[in-house]
Amino acid sequence: MKLMLVGYGNVGKAFRKLLHEKKVKELENVKIAGIVTTRGLMLKDQEEFVPDKKVDVLEALDEVQPDVVVDMASANYKTGEPSLSLYLSALKRGIHVITTNKAPLALKYKEIINTAISHGSKIFFQATVMSGTPSINLYRILPAMKVRKIRGILNGTTNYILTRMSQGLSFNEALKEAQELGYAERDPTLDINGFDAAGKITILSNVYFSRYISINDVKFEGIGNIEIGDALKRGNKIKLIAYADEKETYVKPAEITKEDFLYNVDGVNNALEIESDIQKITIVGPGAGPLNAAYGAFSDLILLLRGENLPGL
Amino acid sequence: MKLMLVGYGNVGKAFRKLLHEKKVKELENVKIAGIVTTRGLMLKDQEEFVPDKKVDVLEALDEVQPDVVVDMASANYKTGEPSLSLYLSALKRGIHVITTNKAPLALKYKEIINTAISHGSKIFFQATVMSGTPSINLYRILPAMKVRKIRGILNGTTNYILTRMSQGLSFNEALKEAQELGYAERDPTLDINGFDAAGKITILSNVYFSRYISINDVKFEGIGNIEIGDALKRGNKIKLIAYADEKETYVKPAEITKEDFLYNVDGVNNALEIESDIQKITIVGPGAGPLNAAYGAFSDLILLLRGENLPGL
Repeated sequence: MKLMLVGYGNVGKAFRKLLHEKKVKELENVKIAGIVTTRGLMLKDQEEFVPDKKVDVLEALDEVQPDVVVDMASANYKTGEPSLSLYLSALKRGIHVITTNKAPLALKYKEIINTAISHGSKIFFQATVMSGTPSINLYRILPAMKVRKIRGILNGTTNYILTRMSQGLSFNEALKEAQELGYAERDPTLDINGFDAAGKITILSNVYFSRYISINDVKFEGIGNIEIGDALKRGNKIKLIAYADEKETYVKPAEITKEDFLYNVDGVNNALEIESDIQKITIVGPGAGPLNAAYGAFSDLILLLRGENLPGL
Repeated sequence: MKLMLVGYGNVGKAFRKLLHEKKVKELENVKIAGIVTTRGLMLKDQEEFVPDKKVDVLEALDEVQPDVVVDMASANYKTGEPSLSLYLSALKRGIHVITTNKAPLALKYKEIINTAISHGSKIFFQATVMSGTPSINLYRILPAMKVRKIRGILNGTTNYILTRMSQGLSFNEALKEAQELGYAERDPTLDINGFDAAGKITILSNVYFSRYISINDVKFEGIGNIEIGDALKRGNKIKLIAYADEKETYVKPAEITKEDFLYNVDGVNNALEIESDIQKITIVGPGAGPLNAAYGAFSDLILLLRGENLPGL
């Protein structure tokens, strides 16, 4: 079983480490046959990245001929490229795809899933939502529910900022701290304006409601000019809430009371509530971090090796 | 695929309803071939129980020759019987077992699992802990973690009583109310004294630490003479906490602060925290109720039909 890793930043490095350190029987015949970044393709498995060839990801796919592509590159929300073309090309050849990159799925879920179905290949994407905390994969063990609504805190950057603001910092101070700690990017626009959370609730909606929506169908509002003083005075907190039911899907800030489970979901923790005809359950865990994202992809790999598919496919 | 249901109280009836109402492709060739209770065996699938033969569960197994036994009978903690003998007998013949009854697994986990392994049959038991809220099955989607500790609220009856006490009721008033609402049994001893939670943390320890312990190895303390006044004055709550790490496994009441996720787990809700080398995650959901327990068994059936086994087996 040959893997090709795409992207080799902190997540890619953590993934490689998990692959080497975790002694799991499923991994016995798995090896990294290639690692590709914007700098080119390395045709061996070593920690330091030294490109052997100056090729792009699609050329790398031809070169490596892997059984599984693991995409851990950063997201391009305008077009989803080059990842989108890579997935379609791989899936058409029967190559499975595991990804931590939500842009292609938030933009073109239907096209990607249908390509996988019609070619008998698989796409796994736990780490696109809540990183290594089961959100997508939770659906595997909750079969045949009639989901009524889902609701969550899906962006760690804004949740960290809102948490620190509730502790007295200004928005700018909180953002600066988040950047220093590596919780926010240098250009934090897509986190702050709710777009990242919108991408995630798009993917969750598609899975939990067996739907085909795109991020362009989702209304979103961020925390750019947020005022939290009045909520604090009432003993409440402001959280950036992502919500979906059968009729609507949106992201917007909301006032959360002490009795709400989401009240205690602070810092870079994320949470997802699923309300179905059976019950309401909530899962909470870290929504970001290189090891967490890497574990999301790693857990997908193990499930893939166990022969699983996305339920319903 | 022939099922034999054991026990036909509220859980059994809810399970049968799910089986008939949920349109899932996995269930296409599944039918109930027999239902057995202490009153005898009914050899057809109908809502009203009318025994056809006066036989016990072991004789019923011979009679029905099912592919899967679904045990939803109430627990006998002294010996685990007659369910324990039924599981061993079924597993030895290659008949799979799904159970909501925790007594046999809390008493004889090793013997049951080893019987399944050596005969290539399967035992699924999600509903023994947290009912339909994934606790056992959560482990399926968290492969290759190194679990450091698990901690939770695993008994709905005591959590309901403690919740109502924190709202001003006396222990006896809260217990009476719980009984009237069907959250506590007429003899609530095994809930109140922590034994039920001890059985659940035993099963979780065996799964999450790949261990073989019995409920007899677990220290437990209940809420019989609990005093919650001082904790309330400090703004805290008392919760009955089940805990396990690699060294110890116990159940005892503990004071929980506002910052703790478990603080907001009230009423008949249960919660489970899992701390591993990767991350700390928490799942919260109802821990009791006929539909919930039935769904736990039903979700096991679907996973079984998808070809899954308990991870590690």
